Formats: sequence, C-alpha cells, structure tokens
Amino acid sequence: RKPAKLSLCISIMAVNQNPAVHGVIVQLPLDSAHKMDTELITNAVSPDKDVDGSDFILSCDFREAMFNLFPPVMSLPVPGVSVAGKHAVVIGRSKIVGAPMHDLLLWRHATVTTCHSRTQDLPEQVGRADILVVGAGRAEMVRGEWLKVGAVVIDCGINHLPASGKRVVGDVHYASANQRAGFITPVPGGVGPMTVAIINDNIRLSEQEVLLF
Amino acid sequence: RKPAKLSLCISIMAVNQNPAVHGVIVQLPLDSAHKMDTELITNAVSPDKDVDGSDFILSCDFREAMFNLFPPVMSLPVPGVSVAGKHAVVIGRSKIVGAPMHDLLLWRHATVTTCHSRTQDLPEQVGRADILVVGAGRAEMVRGEWLKVGAVVIDCGINHLPASGKRVVGDVHYASANQRAGFITPVPGGVGPMTVAIINDNIRLSEQEVLLF
Repeated sequence: RKPAKLSLCISIMAVNQNPAVHGVIVQLPLDSAHKMDTELITNAVSPDKDVDGSDFILSCDFREAMFNLFPPVMSLPVPGVSVAGKHAVVIGRSKIVGAPMHDLLLWRHATVTTCHSRTQDLPEQVGRADILVVGAGRAEMVRGEWLKVGAVVIDCGINHLPASGKRVVGDVHYASANQRAGFITPVPGGVGPMTVAIINDNIRLSEQEVLLF
Repeated sequence: RKPAKLSLCISIMAVNQNPAVHGVIVQLPLDSAHKMDTELITNAVSPDKDVDGSDFILSCDFREAMFNLFPPVMSLPVPGVSVAGKHAVVIGRSKIVGAPMHDLLLWRHATVTTCHSRTQDLPEQVGRADILVVGAGRAEMVRGEWLKVGAVVIDCGINHLPASGKRVVGDVHYASANQRAGFITPVPGGVGPMTVAIINDNIRLSEQEVLLF
C-alpha cells in the first residue's frame, strides 16, 4: 500500500529527525497514480541521510557538493582508467543516469557528448567514445560493431525480455560489445551490484538502520 | 564602494519586497576580496524580479523552469536554425555560458558535446559542430579553418587586446571564421547587444525601474 504525497513527506520528515535512522532511500520511480512530485519528495530527505545521493542528483547542489557528502551511487570508479582528456559519450539524458554521469565526467575533465533519442548519427558518435555510458532504456540497442576498440563501456540499462523467458539484458549487446571493449560492465552483475555496494558503503550497514519507502 | 556579503543580501531582500522595483541584476563576477558566495547572493533575488535569469542559470530550477519565467539571457534564438538533431559543440563549462548553453541545447534536442581546456582534439571536435557556442575566455582561439562549412557560430567571448590599442575581440577568429560559417555573431556587436536587448525585454523598461548592485 503506497502512501499518498503528504503522508510520504511527513514520514520522511519524521525519519529525518529520528537519530536512530541514519539513511533514507526513496525508491524511484514513485507511483504515478498519486501524481507525486519526485523532486519535492527526494528533496525532503535530509542531505546527511540521503545515502543514494538523489538529493544531489536531482538538485543543483549536486554540482557543487557531489564529492563532499555522500557520493551519488553513479560515481562508478573504473580502476586504471584516467578520465581527464578522454572523449566520453553518454547515451540518455535522464536525471538518474544521463545528467549526473555527464556532470561527473565533465568535472573529471572528460570531453563529454550527450546523445539521446533525437541523435541522428548514434553509431558514429559511439565510435568516437573512449568511455561510453549507456542509460537509454532500450534492450541491446548499442552494438559491438559501433565501439572503438578498447573502449570502456558502462551499461546502466536493465531490460526484461518477455519473449525469452524474462531474460534480463542491458542497453548494450554484450556478446558483440565484449569482443571490442577494453572494459565492459555486464547486465546483470555490473552496475546493479556496484550501486548496491556503494549504497551499503554510504550507509555503513554495520551500525545503521535504513528505511525503504 | 562595494557592500559586504551580509549587507548585499539585506539590500536584495529589501528590493525583493519593494513593489516599486520590478527587476534586479547582480553584476558578476562579485568582488573576490570579500569572498562572497555567488550562488547564495544570486539566489537571494526573487525569481519574479530575476531579469537576467541568473537564479535559474545558477540553480537546478533552471532546468525545470527556464522556459517558464524570465528566459535566461543566453537563450539566443537564431532565426531559421532548427536545433533538434543537430550536433552542437559548446566550448567552456562555466556557469554563466557553457553549462546553461549545454542545458538549453540539450533540451532543444541537440546532440551536445562540451569541450574545455582539457580537451585534447579541439579542432577535430569543432569540425563536427553544426552549431558552435564559444565561451572560453581566450582571444581568437577558434580558427576559421576548424569549422564545418555552414556552421552556426555563437561567440560569447569578450577579450581586450592591450597590444593593439585595446581592441575588443571574441573567442573566435572572426575574419577566417566568417569565410566558412553559415551564421556568425561578431564581437563586439553580437551576443553583447543581444543580451542587453533580452534583459531589456525582460524588464519591459518602459514602466519599470531596475537597480544594479
């Protein structure tokens, strides 16, 4: 049973003030039947309890503060990859993946291109990427043949293929991309578990309690 | 005599509440000697009096609201140019030019690449631009030979050349760029007067009074 907008905000304010609660996660997307304002509700979470960094991701403070308090879950470190000066391509401009990844990569001094559904030459754009981040929500849309050899590929997509026994795939065609990429995150088993691990790290689970709405 | 931080905020709050004042412009950059927080001070301006849109440019609300209240001064319309699906290149990632231009172009469905001082292949990146926006603060750094033939070039730079009798030039080498571009804004006489015109339009000067701090 999902709470309505007002009661949800009141619940968040209550846990904000409860010293026994150290972390709060608002699971997105919110129930569209209640026409809830996502930004209003995620902003209601106190910044020092915002373990998945959504308050920053969805607010401008993100740009200033992202390295200061809880790091947003999307700040994936890729061992051995220097971002500065690289050409990064981000596919998707959502507030949860595309926009914060653009900001993170730019702040780490990559040259960043944002592609999306209206981009006309996607394979060509992808072919120039040293680092490719995909959060488009389309099953296996990026083909291995598009990639620059040795590219770092971060696949943030999660797609259920009903036709094939509900198999879960990413936005990248893994089998072909794995032939050319220098580093690639699989789906499942890549960004998903890493996100959980970073959230766990933010929460420091051993001593804290987390409420999920 | 420049006011200190607290008195500046109090002054802004006073004009916010003064019905005789319809527009407020905080002239940037603020005096660095007083270590003032630019975002704090521009955010103090009431949104309905923020005639140059800096409140939006420097805050996340910009992304949501930029077309709703006062349009930011950088939202230059270029007659006859359809932005959707075009490849736009923005040079510079400042909060006053690069970042808002990235957002505006992306929201109008361009594929947007942000370049900056750490970009390694600037001429190559520029050569792919259908629309080029330059706000880098380096006199005549973009050469005409770099441009795609027919490109739209928006030069936001203002540089004083002391060696040549304080001549004012943009970030684009106008003489050579004008040979290849399909449309180019000169410096002086391009973005500067357009900015003033849009601010004037926002203020509707005929019936309103504006305070400049």
